[in-house]
Amino acid sequence: MSSLTAIDHVGIAVDDLEAAVEHYRRTLGVKPILRERVADQGVEEVLFAAGNSYIQLLGALAPDTPVGRFLTTNGPGIHHVAYRVTDIASTLDQLRREQVRLIDDVPRRGSRNTLIAFVHPKSMGGVLVELVQEG
Amino acid sequence: MSSLTAIDHVGIAVDDLEAAVEHYRRTLGVKPILRERVADQGVEEVLFAAGNSYIQLLGALAPDTPVGRFLTTNGPGIHHVAYRVTDIASTLDQLRREQVRLIDDVPRRGSRNTLIAFVHPKSMGGVLVELVQEG
Repeated sequence: MSSLTAIDHVGIAVDDLEAAVEHYRRTLGVKPILRERVADQGVEEVLFAAGNSYIQLLGALAPDTPVGRFLTTNGPGIHHVAYRVTDIASTLDQLRREQVRLIDDVPRRGSRNTLIAFVHPKSMGGVLVELVQEG
Repeated sequence: MSSLTAIDHVGIAVDDLEAAVEHYRRTLGVKPILRERVADQGVEEVLFAAGNSYIQLLGALAPDTPVGRFLTTNGPGIHHVAYRVTDIASTLDQLRREQVRLIDDVPRRGSRNTLIAFVHPKSMGGVLVELVQEG
């Protein structure tokens, strides 16, 4: 049985990544610890540590990307929440048993040597949920 | 200097609190640990533990409440993110120095013997931010 052990991160879509990083640094006193450009997802991300969790700022590399389309439709704001689980394959099995619609039927590699999978917001009360298993 | 030590919780607005609690229990295997009706905020909340953080489901007690209006405008989904800080008064001072617009200029009592204050989403890139200091 897989356990949910943490809020891994909150993903926040921003219009201007550099300005947002500076704003988080100045207002909340947090420091960026990782920056990664994920070309196949069309996103550049910056992570800040928040104890055992992360704040993830997401900038779109182009308008025609998932985060770019989110920004066009909703404007900047919270994009998704990620839960850390001990066994992502087992969690995905459990979600399938409960007829939950998955975006990623099979886990894929995320940043920080993680395995990740997204769950469709239609099955989670409008919340885009990401599952994360650490490496 | 105040420090941001955790994502205290993610607040999720739901249409039907009982159905959502049951859905979270069955899909993610989490257990509700606290239920509280906060009449002056027009909300009933259920907390689930997620390691050192919480998942907070928020049901509106009436349409003409902050969460009720959020549901009417946006539908169900992520309502806010709360960061745990060591010294909320000092964090609010820092935000004021950075010209950030506050919803609560002075901390008030939250649940779990906490002090809380909300920050205006206009000043935080569209994100409704809550600050939480544990008691």
